[in-house]
Amino acid sequence: MHAPGDIRVEELSDPSIQEPTDAVLRLSATCVCGSDLWRYRGEDAFSSPQHMGHEYVGVVEEIGSAVTTLRPGDVVVGSFFASDNTCEICRAGYQTSCVHRQLMSGAQSELLRVPLADGTLVAVEGTPDDTQLRGLLAASDVFGTGWFGARAAQVGPGSTVVVVGDGAVGLLAVLSAKLMGAERIIAMSRHAARQEIAREFGATDIVAERGEEGVELVREMTGGLGAPSVIEAVGTQAAMSQAFRVTRAGGHLGFVGVSHGVTFEGRDLFMSHVHLHGGPAPVRDYLPDLTSRIMAKEINPGRVFDLDLPLAEAAEAYRAMDERRAVKALLRPSAP
Amino acid sequence: MHAPGDIRVEELSDPSIQEPTDAVLRLSATCVCGSDLWRYRGEDAFSSPQHMGHEYVGVVEEIGSAVTTLRPGDVVVGSFFASDNTCEICRAGYQTSCVHRQLMSGAQSELLRVPLADGTLVAVEGTPDDTQLRGLLAASDVFGTGWFGARAAQVGPGSTVVVVGDGAVGLLAVLSAKLMGAERIIAMSRHAARQEIAREFGATDIVAERGEEGVELVREMTGGLGAPSVIEAVGTQAAMSQAFRVTRAGGHLGFVGVSHGVTFEGRDLFMSHVHLHGGPAPVRDYLPDLTSRIMAKEINPGRVFDLDLPLAEAAEAYRAMDERRAVKALLRPSAP
Repeated sequence: MHAPGDIRVEELSDPSIQEPTDAVLRLSATCVCGSDLWRYRGEDAFSSPQHMGHEYVGVVEEIGSAVTTLRPGDVVVGSFFASDNTCEICRAGYQTSCVHRQLMSGAQSELLRVPLADGTLVAVEGTPDDTQLRGLLAASDVFGTGWFGARAAQVGPGSTVVVVGDGAVGLLAVLSAKLMGAERIIAMSRHAARQEIAREFGATDIVAERGEEGVELVREMTGGLGAPSVIEAVGTQAAMSQAFRVTRAGGHLGFVGVSHGVTFEGRDLFMSHVHLHGGPAPVRDYLPDLTSRIMAKEINPGRVFDLDLPLAEAAEAYRAMDERRAVKALLRPSAP
Repeated sequence: MHAPGDIRVEELSDPSIQEPTDAVLRLSATCVCGSDLWRYRGEDAFSSPQHMGHEYVGVVEEIGSAVTTLRPGDVVVGSFFASDNTCEICRAGYQTSCVHRQLMSGAQSELLRVPLADGTLVAVEGTPDDTQLRGLLAASDVFGTGWFGARAAQVGPGSTVVVVGDGAVGLLAVLSAKLMGAERIIAMSRHAARQEIAREFGATDIVAERGEEGVELVREMTGGLGAPSVIEAVGTQAAMSQAFRVTRAGGHLGFVGVSHGVTFEGRDLFMSHVHLHGGPAPVRDYLPDLTSRIMAKEINPGRVFDLDLPLAEAAEAYRAMDERRAVKALLRPSAP
């Protein structure tokens, strides 16, 4: 990204092993993230051109001398933060706050250097077919993020859940809630195509109304109290306020939309009795479970990719997502 | 309270049963709350003279026709919110958000009408001696509030806990953490007398430094990461920021100081991975357990009362707390 709105695919020198804990991957699939759009739209500060992309599935091409759990040829998935997966914070399940974390970038490419490879990458059994590949790519970020949202919202068997946001993360939060045993899943969505995916993933109710009207409707649907579990998957003040106001006293609000200009009044939080938890999803923690389910074909989270393009057409992928012509665009690097 | 700083003890007509679910108590002991001081100091909006007090232990004098669990003569404790204790929110353990809740006031008096008596009051076994009476009075608010703070901070066996605030609530949060099995309890306190109570209650470390210096010190004491469980028991932005910054990624911050001018930046919360939960403590939920422990003389939470006055001298009780000459003032209504 040379500037907001200016995406170019350029030839760079190949990445190589720099630290003994590195691996270099040849990517099978990558994609554009909703969070990339903040920068694309100029809504995040932009200082200098940058290599984009932090979602990836690939084949290990080369490993550093200290890497012990991976071999060249392994099909692997990783998260948007590299992590050692051994520190106290990682062991508590917060790999995205790892004391040695490194934010990934440059995954919208053919080759990718991944630091802390043992702690970051998870190898899958067997060779994924195209459906599985799409699922694994979703697991790299949006599925893991929806999963964390549902965990943070304390979804469990029999839960009533509200999901605010119908992007890939919101939709996969619906799927996550369903897999965790939720009984009632209310998806707040205005777009017919996204409502359809939400229903396929397990939404039992769709609320198309927003703002005050949407809040009132959801409260009516939940005995006037709001829901015990709510997932916020947008990151704006409007979405957060909506989510907050449909969470019942004592309920859990999991927020996974990257916060943009969101503030909370302490007094509102205090009087609400809402549990608040969120942040960058510790995807690494969920990858072994999620990739197993995908390889077993129990689930199809890759359903959120509704546009396939060669990597060379990355600029069109951004445009399509920006204009909401696509939920999420998958990019295929060329074959080696 | 006729105005900020203007406390008068006046003769009013006796309260009486107004609803069949009411009880009228003759109070054995009452007290001044840290939260009363906000109004006393003019830091909360003050519109008209009001009857003060929401902490009470007393003997049932009269019950309404629908009251089934209490009899005249019972020694009872209640919370600062009356609750039905049967609605869905109460059953989830949030009686202070009960759909029928009523904020108590006027407990700095000889007689008190308590609405929803069956759902609000807990009778104790036997006749409390003075130590037990003081403990029961603490359970009515500050002990239950400290207990909720520790619960919200997910304190458990072996926990490392930081308590920000050395008022009665903060001190009793120390005791609560100890009773829940915490191994290390770091109390942030600058006052020698309060440090002493904190140590009696189970604090293993005292940090007298505040602000940046206090934060750094606590982070050093917790492996550079901050503590997994932190309790905020003040309600100011300074205290909340301090608490937030000593909570580790993935940790739990329980906040029970009534928020005054506190705000949270969504992005800070997002990047912190901190779990946030707090509010008006559902004391009613804890009263059966806490009063049993007090009557069994296992604990002495009444230790926080360091000034005893007759109710007639309520004005002095406020002054002493305002000037920090007392942690918490107990008021004795005259005998009938």
